Amino acid sequence: DRPLVLIAGPCVIENEAATLRCAERLMTICNGVSLSLVFKASYDKANRTSVTSFRGPGMQEGLRILQKVKDSLGIPVISDIHSIEQVKPAAEVLDIIQVPAFLCRQTDLVVEVGRTNRVVNVKKGQFMAPWDMENVVGKILSTGNERIILTERGVSFGYNNLVSDMRSLPIMRRIGFPVVFDATHSVQLPGGQGGSSGGQREFVEYLSRAAVATGIDGIFMEVHEDPDKALCDGPNSVRLDDLPALLKKLKAIDAIVK
Amino acid sequence: DRPLVLIAGPCVIENEAATLRCAERLMTICNGVSLSLVFKASYDKANRTSVTSFRGPGMQEGLRILQKVKDSLGIPVISDIHSIEQVKPAAEVLDIIQVPAFLCRQTDLVVEVGRTNRVVNVKKGQFMAPWDMENVVGKILSTGNERIILTERGVSFGYNNLVSDMRSLPIMRRIGFPVVFDATHSVQLPGGQGGSSGGQREFVEYLSRAAVATGIDGIFMEVHEDPDKALCDGPNSVRLDDLPALLKKLKAIDAIVK
Amino acid sequence: DRPLVLIAGPCVIENEAATLRCAERLMTICNGVSLSLVFKASYDKANRTSVTSFRGPGMQEGLRILQKVKDSLGIPVISDIHSIEQVKPAAEVLDIIQVPAFLCRQTDLVVEVGRTNRVVNVKKGQFMAPWDMENVVGKILSTGNERIILTERGVSFGYNNLVSDMRSLPIMRRIGFPVVFDATHSVQLPGGQGGSSGGQREFVEYLSRAAVATGIDGIFMEVHEDPDKALCDGPNSVRLDDLPALLKKLKAIDAIVK
Amino acid sequence: DRPLVLIAGPCVIENEAATLRCAERLMTICNGVSLSLVFKASYDKANRTSVTSFRGPGMQEGLRILQKVKDSLGIPVISDIHSIEQVKPAAEVLDIIQVPAFLCRQTDLVVEVGRTNRVVNVKKGQFMAPWDMENVVGKILSTGNERIILTERGVSFGYNNLVSDMRSLPIMRRIGFPVVFDATHSVQLPGGQGGSSGGQREFVEYLSRAAVATGIDGIFMEVHEDPDKALCDGPNSVRLDDLPALLKKLKAIDAIVK
Repeated sequence: DRPLVLIAGPCVIENEAATLRCAERLMTICNGVSLSLVFKASYDKANRTSVTSFRGPGMQEGLRILQKVKDSLGIPVISDIHSIEQVKPAAEVLDIIQVPAFLCRQTDLVVEVGRTNRVVNVKKGQFMAPWDMENVVGKILSTGNERIILTERGVSFGYNNLVSDMRSLPIMRRIGFPVVFDATHSVQLPGGQGGSSGGQREFVEYLSRAAVATGIDGIFMEVHEDPDKALCDGPNSVRLDDLPALLKKLKAIDAIVK
Repeated sequence: DRPLVLIAGPCVIENEAATLRCAERLMTICNGVSLSLVFKASYDKANRTSVTSFRGPGMQEGLRILQKVKDSLGIPVISDIHSIEQVKPAAEVLDIIQVPAFLCRQTDLVVEVGRTNRVVNVKKGQFMAPWDMENVVGKILSTGNERIILTERGVSFGYNNLVSDMRSLPIMRRIGFPVVFDATHSVQLPGGQGGSSGGQREFVEYLSRAAVATGIDGIFMEVHEDPDKALCDGPNSVRLDDLPALLKKLKAIDAIVK
Repeated sequence: DRPLVLIAGPCVIENEAATLRCAERLMTICNGVSLSLVFKASYDKANRTSVTSFRGPGMQEGLRILQKVKDSLGIPVISDIHSIEQVKPAAEVLDIIQVPAFLCRQTDLVVEVGRTNRVVNVKKGQFMAPWDMENVVGKILSTGNERIILTERGVSFGYNNLVSDMRSLPIMRRIGFPVVFDATHSVQLPGGQGGSSGGQREFVEYLSRAAVATGIDGIFMEVHEDPDKALCDGPNSVRLDDLPALLKKLKAIDAIVK
Repeated sequence: DRPLVLIAGPCVIENEAATLRCAERLMTICNGVSLSLVFKASYDKANRTSVTSFRGPGMQEGLRILQKVKDSLGIPVISDIHSIEQVKPAAEVLDIIQVPAFLCRQTDLVVEVGRTNRVVNVKKGQFMAPWDMENVVGKILSTGNERIILTERGVSFGYNNLVSDMRSLPIMRRIGFPVVFDATHSVQLPGGQGGSSGGQREFVEYLSRAAVATGIDGIFMEVHEDPDKALCDGPNSVRLDDLPALLKKLKAIDAIVK
């Protein structure tokens, strides 16, 4: 088992300067605790609760900024795609292409991402059992691509609530690919604020420690300099200032269970 | 309140002859019990559990067959779309365009369908609360299109199971648009057979009677001449021979509650 | 299949006069729509959310009042017991002894009730699958008592919410005993008001119509002259004035499905 | 925060020799890893799935054996009570009296246990939200007893399944009392084997590590020399031989998060 990797970044690319600043700070923090970093940010939030929510700079501008992060900091980047046409341009920039949870059952999209031969990160749908991800993996393997990551981000639990079933992490690892726990989307309260989704930032620390203690490959977190001012997912984003202490604990727990 | 409408057809268009034969039998059955009929069949099953599952004849051929159903029988047709490019060609044939449950949060898709000014039927995601459909409705209304139908098809209940919360029907009706209960997808056991979804055909009758008794606008059912030979969703499809008796009961219940 | 039976009454025995008045009005209403009536009221609410909630007059006084209802109106009565010592005195008055949902797995209590040879009504625990009631039935049958009723009252669905899975009604009927749907506890929001349980009276009508449409043996409802002044379960009790119209619909639906 | 405590023992007292042998081995193991031990075993399994399941030696004999464990090993003992009459005799032997999950809402029982002034351990019902335990705590505090422990043992998640919501541990700790995670009942599949409950022993290690990583006061586990031969809860019991390695990890994780 290799040591834990951190996948982190702002929920959405707000602008170039803020994105680069966030990536730099993350890099400094990760160097300080000897954790590998993959930088994540979305260029388009395609499934916001409300039609008037902020969505991001769009694909072209977003990929340009992510390329700049790669060039200036030398770290791998990950982002999510939402349609088949986005796959090819995204594959030219991204090291890891992410299939959103709501779209994890869309065969054509998953296969198209598989064909790029980039690493594919599929988020488990909120409506899926962990063992059902084996069928999604099969769709990617049908393209000859074996570089797959599976991400847990909570499962539907009644209305406007998700629960993180920690059994799902070892269950998905048995499929044979690295497993990531998304510690910030797992604390979302979907649709829980009427026109947007609520969140419970205070539980990110508990759930990320718990998930790492089961023995996983990566931990995913949305971070922000000032979450209360974030244009997306502020309620569940981690404040950058709080990150070093949390990562130190996660790294120590990871060392015990591996 | 207008009387109940039936939306029915085979899960997938298997071929032209079988599709026309099914539509004709449905029409005869509906005439016999004085129920309005909308014919439904999918030309592409884009989110099958497994990559090797049968998917249908594709959009072009499927729309051609649906046009033939319209022309020869004079009944409205409904089918589902899975990407933005499909919306325009689909709108030239379909009377009602359906947004699949997994895709009901994809803003661009929902808005594009709204712009066609066709009737839009949105299936509530298995991961959504009924009141959250108000945000989806808002996305369609933002296009100026007010011809909206909302369909309940069950909500995630643990793993590999759905439950039909009958409260969701009056809750969604309060949003102000017609509500349909999908009686055959609601009895699916998602992924419950490993490489495909299981189903519980024996509960279709109970759930459809229950849903109609709450007072709804339409009932949706997948039907088949011989469900055990169906290429898709056989385990939860209703045998055509069993339909007349069931519809008679539904119509009688509908008359009581309206 | 015999016609639907109504089990109804106030949640708790508030005092003798109010209880008799309620029973008389229920009898008049049921005679008006030709429905059989079983009168239900609790003498002790043993599992209220808060220690300071009103609990009732106690067993001795409560059974005295229920005996008076029987004597003056000639209708059968049902009430719930909470410990083994209560079983014998309760059996001297009650026609049907009810095992509360939280206690349906307590072997000794269930067996003791079985031994009275009174009709036993077991409410399915909010934590149980409908097929699991077969084991509870087995405990009662082990006493030689075959007069058993099973009642659905909703199943846990996330936190502070219950959902009524209408499949559970035909599933429990297959076990071979009459099945009742408890239409007012099913709309409770357990603990949903902090120090007490909330309720959604507006859904009682929809859920009771839906349940009767599946084909059941009895419908249970808590009723009150003025639910907002009820000392227990007011938020989910049906106003007596609203009952006749509802029962007429239920009777008509029952006639269609039997 | 004080270091983690282990509460462990066989599910049920099978006989005196086996119980003493198990307690001795547990003590040796705990001494080896410097963990405090509370010995737990039930004298009566009052809510087994089936009426023919093994239930234990009964209260009198069971308390005698537990007293012997105390006398010979000098460790505190905990067991569960199921009716008000059991409370007094149990309080003469037990250091901690446990209220079973199904019974946590029975006001009289909870109050009676509170009155003993023994430590009260209440298991959260599978049907309860963590914040609702505040009302249960209130019932105990009403007796003047402030020595309370709250135990998480999983929450209903669909049928025949429980999920351990790790958020519930910090939520219950905020109420102000020590919180224990029951790592073996949390992996039960209630009723999942038809006539008995199934279990998933392989997840005990993952869930216990996860729970300890959130920062808790105690971990509870059912253990057995040879779980496949256990008379109760074998499918979810931990093999004694596997315990030392697991406890070492738990202790190390506990040290990091406290």
